[in-house]
Amino acid sequence: MKYPKIPLAQTVIQLCKAKHIEHIIISPGSRNAPLTIGFTHDDFFTCYSIVDERCAAFFALGIAQKTQKPTAVVCTSGSALLNYYPAIAEAFYSDIPLVVLSADRPKHLLGIGDGQTINQEQVYKNHILYSANLKQDLKEGQSFLQDDELPIFKNIENKLEKFLGLQQNRQEQNENEINEALNIAIHKKGPVHINIPFDEPLYETIDVLTVKPKAIEVTIKPKKIEELLLKDLIEDWYHATKKMIIVGVNSPNAIEQKWLNELAEDKSVVVFTETTSNLHHPNFFPSIDKIIAPLNDDEFKALQPDLLLTFGGLIVSKKIKAFLRQYKPKHHWHVDLQKANDTFFCLEHHIKTTPNQFFSEFFPEVTHLTKSNYFETWSSVKKIRKKKHIDYLEHISFSDLKAFQNVFKHIPDNSILHLGNSSTVRYAQLFNINKTLEVFCNRGTSGIDGSTSTAIGCAVSSEKQTVLVTGDLSFFYDSNALWNNYIPNNFRIIIINNQGGGIFRILPGHKNSENFDTFFETKHQLSAKSLSDMYGFDYVAATKEDDLKITLSTFFNSDEKPKILEIFTPRVDNDSILLNYFKALV
Amino acid sequence: MKYPKIPLAQTVIQLCKAKHIEHIIISPGSRNAPLTIGFTHDDFFTCYSIVDERCAAFFALGIAQKTQKPTAVVCTSGSALLNYYPAIAEAFYSDIPLVVLSADRPKHLLGIGDGQTINQEQVYKNHILYSANLKQDLKEGQSFLQDDELPIFKNIENKLEKFLGLQQNRQEQNENEINEALNIAIHKKGPVHINIPFDEPLYETIDVLTVKPKAIEVTIKPKKIEELLLKDLIEDWYHATKKMIIVGVNSPNAIEQKWLNELAEDKSVVVFTETTSNLHHPNFFPSIDKIIAPLNDDEFKALQPDLLLTFGGLIVSKKIKAFLRQYKPKHHWHVDLQKANDTFFCLEHHIKTTPNQFFSEFFPEVTHLTKSNYFETWSSVKKIRKKKHIDYLEHISFSDLKAFQNVFKHIPDNSILHLGNSSTVRYAQLFNINKTLEVFCNRGTSGIDGSTSTAIGCAVSSEKQTVLVTGDLSFFYDSNALWNNYIPNNFRIIIINNQGGGIFRILPGHKNSENFDTFFETKHQLSAKSLSDMYGFDYVAATKEDDLKITLSTFFNSDEKPKILEIFTPRVDNDSILLNYFKALV
Repeated sequence: MKYPKIPLAQTVIQLCKAKHIEHIIISPGSRNAPLTIGFTHDDFFTCYSIVDERCAAFFALGIAQKTQKPTAVVCTSGSALLNYYPAIAEAFYSDIPLVVLSADRPKHLLGIGDGQTINQEQVYKNHILYSANLKQDLKEGQSFLQDDELPIFKNIENKLEKFLGLQQNRQEQNENEINEALNIAIHKKGPVHINIPFDEPLYETIDVLTVKPKAIEVTIKPKKIEELLLKDLIEDWYHATKKMIIVGVNSPNAIEQKWLNELAEDKSVVVFTETTSNLHHPNFFPSIDKIIAPLNDDEFKALQPDLLLTFGGLIVSKKIKAFLRQYKPKHHWHVDLQKANDTFFCLEHHIKTTPNQFFSEFFPEVTHLTKSNYFETWSSVKKIRKKKHIDYLEHISFSDLKAFQNVFKHIPDNSILHLGNSSTVRYAQLFNINKTLEVFCNRGTSGIDGSTSTAIGCAVSSEKQTVLVTGDLSFFYDSNALWNNYIPNNFRIIIINNQGGGIFRILPGHKNSENFDTFFETKHQLSAKSLSDMYGFDYVAATKEDDLKITLSTFFNSDEKPKILEIFTPRVDNDSILLNYFKALV
Repeated sequence: MKYPKIPLAQTVIQLCKAKHIEHIIISPGSRNAPLTIGFTHDDFFTCYSIVDERCAAFFALGIAQKTQKPTAVVCTSGSALLNYYPAIAEAFYSDIPLVVLSADRPKHLLGIGDGQTINQEQVYKNHILYSANLKQDLKEGQSFLQDDELPIFKNIENKLEKFLGLQQNRQEQNENEINEALNIAIHKKGPVHINIPFDEPLYETIDVLTVKPKAIEVTIKPKKIEELLLKDLIEDWYHATKKMIIVGVNSPNAIEQKWLNELAEDKSVVVFTETTSNLHHPNFFPSIDKIIAPLNDDEFKALQPDLLLTFGGLIVSKKIKAFLRQYKPKHHWHVDLQKANDTFFCLEHHIKTTPNQFFSEFFPEVTHLTKSNYFETWSSVKKIRKKKHIDYLEHISFSDLKAFQNVFKHIPDNSILHLGNSSTVRYAQLFNINKTLEVFCNRGTSGIDGSTSTAIGCAVSSEKQTVLVTGDLSFFYDSNALWNNYIPNNFRIIIINNQGGGIFRILPGHKNSENFDTFFETKHQLSAKSLSDMYGFDYVAATKEDDLKITLSTFFNSDEKPKILEIFTPRVDNDSILLNYFKALV
């Protein structure tokens, strides 16, 4: 076996192994050579080489999002690690365990004008759960002491002892810091940064490990809900005749079906789910905007809940946010182990546990109301909307709305669906998505910057077929996502190309002026064909519904290459077709 | 005229105008709509639309680097502004005035789970000269007060007065903050961040400005060198028989030629310049590595200076750094208005003025030594190296070295040359570059991440022909640089494609193993042809010296499209040809 000679590199790598971090995404560099050598020579790790660090981090995010396990990115010093930042912010707001291992110059070579050197310490401060700034290994004769080491230095007379003592002390401090960072990533589910200074020589290897770092285990016991609080909750639940449940981003299979069934049977409960909730029941309400968009004042008041229970991550629907901020529920509880957003300015309780744990303690205690027409009322509205939806879709011309309808209809059972941000995820909310799909979307920051890389990361970490549906701007933004050797042949990209940022046509801008076209919609004539050729994808385009249907009927079949389907829709018609859709739902 | 209705947007835009910020690079978004509307409707500003914020910021950097004037980037809230970070760090270390105008949600909508919302305050903290976090305009009836506003709120009885007082107070604070940020960008030459919260509605416009913000001017008088210090400097200069001048990154025409001539005539002075110094004189030593690489111990000692004077930005040559760290000069002075790196661990004086100012005060006082053979000795070494260089180049096969030789020979007089980082800038140091060229390279962080965007930014801000010479990894990394409508037809890209990160073959890695190829060299088979087609470039390739010469003879001629020349070199030969070059110089 081959190991990096530098003890600090060995320490980092062994602790990653002890913490079961399997997937390591490495961007090329020299300063990180000790880590690259160590990770790639140990069969425990699956290593990936990705040059563009922005893509590398989103690729890692995709793996971590799917596997729910910490995934590491490794880069050299300098601006490399700044390119990780968009993915780190996404991980921060979406609770995804992403571990950044950045190589750095040793402290005495910082701030003196060396190349590829920036101030890496705490560089992600606003969006990171923990930042460990390690200390470089000392070499004999070397004594670049840091302030907190001076006392040790003073009390030891012998030179060698002094060195060994200091090095031992650094080793222990570093081990503690690495353990702390990795444990936080694992248990608090979020990004952490370990900054690792290495002195030259960087490429030396040895056959036997010289350090045996100690892995510190942390066990977190699920806390029971406080008895008094539980009593209050049960009381409030009992008295609420209109209960609304809203679920934001939620991992597939995170909630036990029996609790969902229990919610679905309660006549005083309306469960609003989003495409990204990954929850399904015939009694649930999966297209929030479809229900809410056409409501008048009286109907809004009738929908106003007494009690709102939320769980999961961020909510896509702007309409539900606006509605509940105006028609606030008396009680709003959010169930999550770590955090609770006061999204509607009326949060009453943050119940710090998992939804499953909450339901298992709560449901045995509650009596489900039979005397409420809350569910029935909205269920009948849902039926009307469904009919109007079908009617409208039957009569419109080819457009974004029509394209999405066809696309979502054809995605094969049991695939993984990745949604791009902006228009894509909002259009997806209008359709009943196949319930065998696992759905993902980067809703933490809702950026258009890394959707393709994230989807590809997901694709490599699953046997299932992964399908990315994305807009054209989002696709071109992350075009470097295709620049790697790991894309599985069953991976599919579907681009809805409406020649610009179609969402701006729906917002209250001043459309159809040159100024608008250039600076808001950013109109363009690009196609994904060239990129497909360059990166070895099969490519097919569609501009009409008939072609699209034929293409979709075979597009997901197994093949020897990954594939891109680019659907061109009429830029200037899409917005009115969507706006009329909402009018047609009444 | 059309203005955004929001006073804060008017304030930002008018102050940018008062400070003569002409170039505005806008990325599409909704939250920044008030700024986009305002900037694009005022003919004073030249606005550019660029979707990928990473490219947008480097494009702006290229303009600011060339014009030496502050240039602004405008983006929406969320992860958008994190994509600016690589360019901001480059601006920070290269003293380039880059102004970030990020739109943000108003304070009461932060941290509650809204989309595209991150913690934008102080997000670039490690690499920014100033961060202004503005306060949103109040609307009547609205009172989202911040802590420091509570006293004002208390002392005013009347509701309308209270509102007007608070709004007036905010307006003044915001004006001060904007002035402060822009003045720092202008006078300290570096990046600043102005974070600007806007509440909805975002798209409303009016015909007349409602605020008249006050532009605060700052005049900075050049400080004279302290008399006592000047006396010491003159004394030390007089006694030093071996004086070395090293100039790092330096803007074209920054130093008056008469001072250079004076240095060039002093027999005790050796002036080492780099390609990025933009300084030329027949007596200067432009290829540092060529001089130093073959030296033995005795020769190193003979070269060790008594006095080292440095100015300009970061130094490319690793060899000169290693040499001077081992053979330290007695005195090291660095001349720069703002900062001084202790690059060789022996900095004696940071002389806080511009080089021109320094020379104008210093040179009239000094006596130039006639009794020193320092210049002559190294001048004869230079002659030997030149001959050996020519001999070696004549006999080698086609390779990176040969390709660079041909490329640099053919770049037309009076063009602007942009160099990619890593191998490219280092190869450039081996050749005498045409002295009519202006040379730029992002040496602040030495990243490979934004070279193409920076070069294109430069190209749009100059009538001169801009030529980018870059490696393949750097080119593909920044492929989105080509995604905009502003690339002039005279712009040229020359890619030295050695199918991977050739520099890693020169470093002490373990080359020619699969592991090395994948994770260090990141070997690939890509070509720039597809991207050229996609973005409307003319494309030509060369794989042999004869073809290359023919191609280069017409490549720079005027044409109706920008052009890419891709030179394929033999991946596995390049490193030995370069390593043997240094051996052949003796």
